[in-house]
Amino acid sequence: MRVRNKPWAKGYMADHLDRLVVEPEPLKGNWQSRFPSNQPLFVEIGTGKGQFIIEMARQHPDRNFIGIEIQTSVIAVALKGVVNSGLTNIQLVHTDGEAINTFFEAGEVSGLYLNFSDPWPKKRHTKRRLTSPVFLAHYADVLQPEGQLQFKTDNRGLFEYSLGSLNNFGMVFEGVWLDLHAATDGVEDIQTEYEQKFSKKGPIYQVIAHFPTNN
Amino acid sequence: MRVRNKPWAKGYMADHLDRLVVEPEPLKGNWQSRFPSNQPLFVEIGTGKGQFIIEMARQHPDRNFIGIEIQTSVIAVALKGVVNSGLTNIQLVHTDGEAINTFFEAGEVSGLYLNFSDPWPKKRHTKRRLTSPVFLAHYADVLQPEGQLQFKTDNRGLFEYSLGSLNNFGMVFEGVWLDLHAATDGVEDIQTEYEQKFSKKGPIYQVIAHFPTNN
Ligand SMILES: C[S@@+](CC[C@H](N)C(=O)[O-])C[C@H]1O[C@@H](n2cnc3c(N)ncnc32)[C@H](O)[C@@H]1O
Ligand SMILES: C[S@@+](CC[C@H](N)C(=O)[O-])C[C@H]1O[C@@H](n2cnc3c(N)ncnc32)[C@H](O)[C@@H]1O
Repeated sequence: MRVRNKPWAKGYMADHLDRLVVEPEPLKGNWQSRFPSNQPLFVEIGTGKGQFIIEMARQHPDRNFIGIEIQTSVIAVALKGVVNSGLTNIQLVHTDGEAINTFFEAGEVSGLYLNFSDPWPKKRHTKRRLTSPVFLAHYADVLQPEGQLQFKTDNRGLFEYSLGSLNNFGMVFEGVWLDLHAATDGVEDIQTEYEQKFSKKGPIYQVIAHFPTNN
Repeated sequence: MRVRNKPWAKGYMADHLDRLVVEPEPLKGNWQSRFPSNQPLFVEIGTGKGQFIIEMARQHPDRNFIGIEIQTSVIAVALKGVVNSGLTNIQLVHTDGEAINTFFEAGEVSGLYLNFSDPWPKKRHTKRRLTSPVFLAHYADVLQPEGQLQFKTDNRGLFEYSLGSLNNFGMVFEGVWLDLHAATDGVEDIQTEYEQKFSKKGPIYQVIAHFPTNN
């Protein structure tokens, strides 16, 4: 997402390091220390302005949430939202989600969300897609057994690619939705900024899957 | 598909048993005997009025084709089409495709097509869907290693179910299309009757997959 540079961002971030992690590696295996209660940990990569993860944290006080976002001017907005929410079961991390396995321990993450990830439509950029094999391998490293990867997008090309990529990686589909907003099965759908913006233009796709358990 | 009873059907079928098989089991392992040339065999289950399989046979003279259809008044129409086409690389079989493993030998089938299969939307009818596990097990029995199952439909619910079912069966996706008629990758799309009728109402979905090779 393109956003204007925000002159206030760096100062605001420096003032709220209780809610924001900028050096995640030392916390590996020890993320519960960032929260008041020891609770299952759910992570979103590419949190954007934070609408989804903040609402999730509000609706699920029995879980801890982490939003990972790489862009300074974007995560600064999410951070404002987190601070203003007053919620204590949410932390933000300013880093590249691809390195997730360098700052979470095996099994430390209970569930993983990817929402409206950048599509990277060109074939030569396949490796940058958050559902490409290298990313999946890192997710597999940190997710607990049967922990869910939940991915939604409005981008048809990215979703077609992702269904193939997850399947070819050996992931087990728990559900596929080809028009999430028309779903009648009561599946939870906390909307993201992108979702609100683009759902008028076409269907929202979603897949929930877990990695195979090797035994 | 609901069709009116056709009084001419039975007589016409009896007159064209060179193109139509009504007792398939004895041909198990010996289907090439029904064709002038020994060529890779491709099978469609639920052929309907035959538009797809006849056009496939026309465009691929180097392959043999079999269309399986369970309804008398429907296969009779397909049979007329086959006879009128003059093509010799196509045979029809009047039977229930679920029993496919009773009349094809392991590896006898090079590829399998399911087009616009009946959706059976009710949960208690899941087992009747042509992409449910028992059907898949029978397909796995007859398909050659890496032989493709190709499935297209306009029915969102059936396609959502089928992606999960194929994946959970361990099938390997080669491609997924969520709007086949918008595809720009040059994938072959020989249209069926249903496809022509329903593609104005929404997208056509397609998946191509193969069974895992056990080694
Ligand atoms: C298209 S936006 C979607 C934002 C939000 N999830 C939503 O649905 O509204 C994608 C976001 O992912 C972030 N992003 C992309 N790649 C990332 C990565 N490797 N690690 C962390 N964030 C990433 C981008 O900076 C951008 O803010
Ligand atoms: C919805 S129609 C689609 C026909 C055609 N494939 C098309 O796309 O126009 C489904 C067809 O599958 C046939 N069919 C359903 N179950 C079958 C089975 N188990 N074996 C053979 N044919 C079957 C039905 O009789 C019907 O003609």
